[in-house]
Amino acid sequence: MKKQKIGIVGLGLMGGSLALALRESSDAFEFVGLDHNQAHCQEALELGLVDTIASDLEEIKRCDVIFLSIPVDSIIAISQELTGLDPKCTVIDLGSTKAKISESIPADIRPNFVTAHPMTGTEKFGPSAAHADLYRDKVVVLCDLEKSGQHQQELAKSLFTSIGMKLVYMDAKEHDRHAAFISHMPHAVSYSLANAVMRQEARESIVALAGGGFKDMSRIAKSSPNMWEDIFRQNKENLLEAIHSFQSELKKCQKMVENEEWEALNKWMEEANSLHDILD
Amino acid sequence: MKKQKIGIVGLGLMGGSLALALRESSDAFEFVGLDHNQAHCQEALELGLVDTIASDLEEIKRCDVIFLSIPVDSIIAISQELTGLDPKCTVIDLGSTKAKISESIPADIRPNFVTAHPMTGTEKFGPSAAHADLYRDKVVVLCDLEKSGQHQQELAKSLFTSIGMKLVYMDAKEHDRHAAFISHMPHAVSYSLANAVMRQEARESIVALAGGGFKDMSRIAKSSPNMWEDIFRQNKENLLEAIHSFQSELKKCQKMVENEEWEALNKWMEEANSLHDILD
Repeated sequence: MKKQKIGIVGLGLMGGSLALALRESSDAFEFVGLDHNQAHCQEALELGLVDTIASDLEEIKRCDVIFLSIPVDSIIAISQELTGLDPKCTVIDLGSTKAKISESIPADIRPNFVTAHPMTGTEKFGPSAAHADLYRDKVVVLCDLEKSGQHQQELAKSLFTSIGMKLVYMDAKEHDRHAAFISHMPHAVSYSLANAVMRQEARESIVALAGGGFKDMSRIAKSSPNMWEDIFRQNKENLLEAIHSFQSELKKCQKMVENEEWEALNKWMEEANSLHDILD
Repeated sequence: MKKQKIGIVGLGLMGGSLALALRESSDAFEFVGLDHNQAHCQEALELGLVDTIASDLEEIKRCDVIFLSIPVDSIIAISQELTGLDPKCTVIDLGSTKAKISESIPADIRPNFVTAHPMTGTEKFGPSAAHADLYRDKVVVLCDLEKSGQHQQELAKSLFTSIGMKLVYMDAKEHDRHAAFISHMPHAVSYSLANAVMRQEARESIVALAGGGFKDMSRIAKSSPNMWEDIFRQNKENLLEAIHSFQSELKKCQKMVENEEWEALNKWMEEANSLHDILD
C-alpha cells in the first residue's frame, strides 16, 4: 500500500513531536520536512522525526497532508504561496492565534485548510525538544471548521484523535479571546515575573531560594521570543484586554494589603481557590 | 536508648511531611503532635505522622525538639507561651516570614529558637497532604542563626541535613525581602491570574483550554488563604515593593504591545529568558 505523505513545515517542538506521535500511531505515513534552518533539518533527520527533507515548498505541496508548525506570521506568509493544491490536500496550521490566520487564507485553498490550536507545548524549542507524548490527552481547538472541506474536516479530526487529543470546536475570534486569557496573558505575566527578579541587585541570592512555585511560574518565561512576539502582535487587542483584567485583580490585592483589609484579602484568595473546582 | 522526643505543633503539610522525613532518616525519634483542629490530630495519628497527641502545650514544652509548623501569626502568639524551656530544648519555626518572628521571640528563650524557612511546599494542605520527600534536595534558609544557642544551631543543621536539605544562611530582614520576590509576590500574581479568569463570563470555556503553562501558573492560587493572609500581613512592605517591581515590568510589556514596539518586546522577552541561566 502506498504510504500517505505528510509534510511538516517547521521542525521544532510542535512539528517534530507531531511527526513522532503520528509515526507511533500508524506506519502508513511517510514524513517530509521543511525548515529554513538547515541545522534543524539535519537534526530532524538524525532524530528520525522526518524521513526526508523537501528541496522546496513545491515538493511539500504534493503531500497528502501538510502541517504548518511555524510562528503565526510565517503561517500567514506561507499560506499565500500554497496555490494550486490538489482538492484532497489537507493543510493544518498549528498556530496559537486563529482569527487573522483563518481570514488570510486565499479563498481558492480555504477548503484545503483546517486551522487548529493544540493546547500543549513546553518552554523548550527546536527538533531536540520533540517528544511523542506532547499531544496525548491534550485539547486541540479546531476553529471555523465549517470553512474547511468535508474531507479535510474528517481527516483532521481523525489524525488528532489518533494521537490521543480531545477535540474542541470554536469560532476563531472566540478562540483568540479565550487563548489570550488562558495562554497569551499568562506568558506576559511569566516574562514580567522573570524580569522583575532579574532587575534586582541581589538576583542571584534571590533565585537561590526558588522553590517549586516560582519555578512553575517562571517556566514559560523561557519560551521563544520570536514565536511569542508574533502571537502578541496577532492577538494584540485580546491580549491587552486580558492584561488589563489581570492588572485590576493585582491592583485589588495591592490595595487590600496597603489598607490592611485582611478579611477582604482572605475572601479574595478564597475566590481564587475556586478556579480549581473547574480546572482539572 | 531513650528516644528523642520531637513535638510537632501544626499537623498540616509542612509538619506532617517533616515527621515522615525525620522518621525515615532515623528510628531514634518519638513524635508528639499538637493541633487546634481535632480532626487533623485524629488523621495525623491514623496516617502515622505522629505517635501520640499532646494533651496541651505543657507536654510539648517537655520535648527535646519542637517544630512550629503553623501560620506565621500563630508562631508569634505561641512563642510568647513557650516559657521555662530546658536550656537544651530546641524550638524550630518553619514560617515563611522571618523578621517579625525573629524579633518577637521572648529574650529568655531566644537561644532555644532557630528560625528556619524551608523553601518547599505544595498548594495542598492538611495531614493527608504530607509526604516524606517534601524536603529532599530543597533549600532551607536559617535566619539570624547567631542568636541561637550553639547546641540549637548544631542540632537544627544536623536535622535539616539528615532529611536531604541544602542549608543557606541569611539575615532575617534580607530573607524577607528575597522571599517577597521569589515566593510571596508570585503568590499574589497567581491568585490574581486565577481571579482574572474567574471574573470572565466565559470562564468555563476558557478554562477548558488550559494547557500546562496555565496550570503551572495557577497552581499556587490553590494555597490556603489563612496561611497566606498572615504572610502578606507580616511581610507587607517587602511584598508591596515586589508587587510594584512586577507591575512595572508588566506595564512595560503592555506599552510595547500598545505601541507595537515589537523589536523592543522581543528583546525584553529575551532578557526574561536569561533568568534560566541562573535558575537550575
